[in-house]
Amino acid sequence: MKTTATFYHAGCPVCVEAEQSVALSLDPARFDVEIVHLGDQAGRVGEAKAAGVKSVPALVLGGVPFHINFGAAIEALG
Amino acid sequence: MKTTATFYHAGCPVCVEAEQSVALSLDPARFDVEIVHLGDQAGRVGEAKAAGVKSVPALVLGGVPFHINFGAAIEALG
Repeated sequence: MKTTATFYHAGCPVCVEAEQSVALSLDPARFDVEIVHLGDQAGRVGEAKAAGVKSVPALVLGGVPFHINFGAAIEALG
Repeated sequence: MKTTATFYHAGCPVCVEAEQSVALSLDPARFDVEIVHLGDQAGRVGEAKAAGVKSVPALVLGGVPFHINFGAAIEALG
């Protein structure tokens, strides 16, 4: 069974770079990758916070959050 | 040709977690992954800084640095 990888971002330039370079570089044989734009999908901010996401871009791998560089604090996203 | 992915760390707990979860999850068909422990290989700190690494753990993908979470400032490593 594949591990769920959720990449949360807000469309910032550093977010897009991290999406293209990191999130889309995960092994497709092992991960199901979902990209979530929290600016467009504000209803999922709560889910991201519950997973431990403090800023975007962030990658949640199997439930564990990894913050990549720094784009925006999640508190600014609603 | 595969892209070089270099993961720089310093053995801190957050570094090890990022190594296991992010660096070793890259698609092996597309990336050659090298893990560099800057605590043990202080001679490579200069190379990391030149690639734009400001803190560890960091992943340099095709020459572009991505900082993951925050373990230690590179200035503290020599």
